[in-house]
Amino acid sequence: MPRITLLTDFGSADGYVVAMKGAIVSIAPDSYIDDAAHDLAPGDVTGAAIALWRYWRLYPARTVHVVVVDPGVGSERRGLALEAEDRFLVGPDNGVFTHVLREARRVRAHSLTAREYFAPTISDTFHGRDIFAPVAAHIANGVPLELLGPVMDDPVRLEWPEPRRDGESITGEVVHADRYGNLITNIPADWCERGVRVWIGGRGAPILRTYSDAAQGQLVALIGSLGLMEVSVRDGSAADDLAVGAGAPVTVGV
Amino acid sequence: MPRITLLTDFGSADGYVVAMKGAIVSIAPDSYIDDAAHDLAPGDVTGAAIALWRYWRLYPARTVHVVVVDPGVGSERRGLALEAEDRFLVGPDNGVFTHVLREARRVRAHSLTAREYFAPTISDTFHGRDIFAPVAAHIANGVPLELLGPVMDDPVRLEWPEPRRDGESITGEVVHADRYGNLITNIPADWCERGVRVWIGGRGAPILRTYSDAAQGQLVALIGSLGLMEVSVRDGSAADDLAVGAGAPVTVGV
Amino acid sequence: MPRITLLTDFGSADGYVVAMKGAIVSIAPDSYIDDAAHDLAPGDVTGAAIALWRYWRLYPARTVHVVVVDPGVGSERRGLALEAEDRFLVGPDNGVFTHVLREARRVRAHSLTAREYFAPTISDTFHGRDIFAPVAAHIANGVPLELLGPVMDDPVRLEWPEPRRDGESITGEVVHADRYGNLITNIPADWCERGVRVWIGGRGAPILRTYSDAAQGQLVALIGSLGLMEVSVRDGSAADDLAVGAGAPVTVGV
Repeated sequence: MPRITLLTDFGSADGYVVAMKGAIVSIAPDSYIDDAAHDLAPGDVTGAAIALWRYWRLYPARTVHVVVVDPGVGSERRGLALEAEDRFLVGPDNGVFTHVLREARRVRAHSLTAREYFAPTISDTFHGRDIFAPVAAHIANGVPLELLGPVMDDPVRLEWPEPRRDGESITGEVVHADRYGNLITNIPADWCERGVRVWIGGRGAPILRTYSDAAQGQLVALIGSLGLMEVSVRDGSAADDLAVGAGAPVTVGV
Repeated sequence: MPRITLLTDFGSADGYVVAMKGAIVSIAPDSYIDDAAHDLAPGDVTGAAIALWRYWRLYPARTVHVVVVDPGVGSERRGLALEAEDRFLVGPDNGVFTHVLREARRVRAHSLTAREYFAPTISDTFHGRDIFAPVAAHIANGVPLELLGPVMDDPVRLEWPEPRRDGESITGEVVHADRYGNLITNIPADWCERGVRVWIGGRGAPILRTYSDAAQGQLVALIGSLGLMEVSVRDGSAADDLAVGAGAPVTVGV
Repeated sequence: MPRITLLTDFGSADGYVVAMKGAIVSIAPDSYIDDAAHDLAPGDVTGAAIALWRYWRLYPARTVHVVVVDPGVGSERRGLALEAEDRFLVGPDNGVFTHVLREARRVRAHSLTAREYFAPTISDTFHGRDIFAPVAAHIANGVPLELLGPVMDDPVRLEWPEPRRDGESITGEVVHADRYGNLITNIPADWCERGVRVWIGGRGAPILRTYSDAAQGQLVALIGSLGLMEVSVRDGSAADDLAVGAGAPVTVGV
């Protein structure tokens, strides 16, 4: 039985996540269900896309990754099932799959239109329970994507700000702040040389190898686990210290 | 092997939840354990009852739902095992099962008195680990409720405020605020007609079909996924904007 | 297939926990993975050690407990695999295993040096994904600790403040505050007699059996589920009311 993972902004106080689990298990009773993360900020599609990027390909083939960060629930936004490098993904067509679409060598996407794979009654406010969970369970049971709906050629992608090189200087921006206050930028690891300095929020930081190479409370840049440059404060929060977040400009120069 | 779900107010920082999981697995080693939710406000029995309502019947027959929101631990309050429409439920007899008792067509309840199904040593502060988890594991292993203790005829029910109709106007109240700041009321879907207005905290709101039918920041009423009217702010929090919570009066009128 | 538990300070908003799950499942596909807790304060090694204490021995033999609270990631701190009373434990050698080392009758520890059990590429900031998860999965698959690296005789232990007896009075301290604001002390249950009073933060409290024996809002001491004296406020938070935390002195006297 393949695994199913769940990524949502439902928190852990209301029973929304477990309602999805119940809907899955009623269709695919032997599923392993792994919680991905549920404390995403409400409606944070960008954060969901970055979180998904961290794990979708680490799981083995046939895993079904469900993402429900869905501020447009009940609107005309489409539902989506993807196959990307033998993993399946299910969720709203609002950009949560942006980095899968950027990274995967082969992707095919189907729009979710076949109501026989949905719950018998569909609410207007909780498609996680009534559409995405049942569809994921049917995929785990072996239902091919072709039966779920027509091929879709243009799934929504969030705009990803590309960093720029200008002579010796690089300009990028913060794309996400994580739980630790690490500021994740769009600047890839192979653009970063040791010895240069990073400038953000009016302050400069050296590029070091890891947190422990910094002094307590020091602002540093390093290569994070997504292969992107991050700005951090050792044993502290760069987001708090600099009072910046997503969109803040970052420059790298001598 | 049936599933076991866990709903608690234990949070995710102290190891209380996983102590329950260990106690379960030591008795029923092949259990699938699904986390329901653990960030309920400490002692929020009403919130637990509403969360459980969202999923207890979505799971298949023989699932064991454990609920440990238990401010009266160690007191004379009884422990309870229920069978309701072929699902099992285990927890303190303090009202957390209120909506199961309201909804289920058949329920039988047993008081937990047979100490051979508890842990060998029972603390005065953590019956989740020492009573409810072991009992749930034994039920998952097939122990019939009859062996756990005598039938109980009067499990505790929280008072559920019934909404009232008075001519053309309906009066109800907020019963819960969820993570998004949605204000869930006790007014059922079939009492709500489009075109009428909902009044709460001195403000009026139209009844719409879904969030996307509202403007950004607009106060709206809609039918939530429990089949109850909810008051929401699109991409915002009605609880914060109106500064109201459980108990706040809601009226529906022309 | 044995269980694997995960205890981290990764929170539930960034996908770090599920990246570890993916790394485990890619090596040990049939693993049951139980979340322990993920909302530990960033870098709270002491809190992790206490949380682990609550469950490591409740799980059956062959369980693999993974702990990643790892502020020294990327430094020279060693990685560790332990066998303690037939359970396995994996994580950084920074003190998170202190109470396992104190409690277990037999422990053997191995340093993690055999890179063939790590991920092919190892980041400098996320050994949870690149070292500890793969090693845990290999242990679950049956790889003996001997293959992971050499025996280590001196795993790091946090200093545990021992309580002192001085005539009729006992002096101890708070070692942790939990989610409820309960102040867990280092004073063991069998040092506590009913009838004596506990002094903390300038206030006195009786030793009672359980929360329900206290009045609403009353400051009380009782024996917690770790077998240690705790100071609590019924239906409130002792940590908030007294404005104290770890390190605060506690005395017991007549």
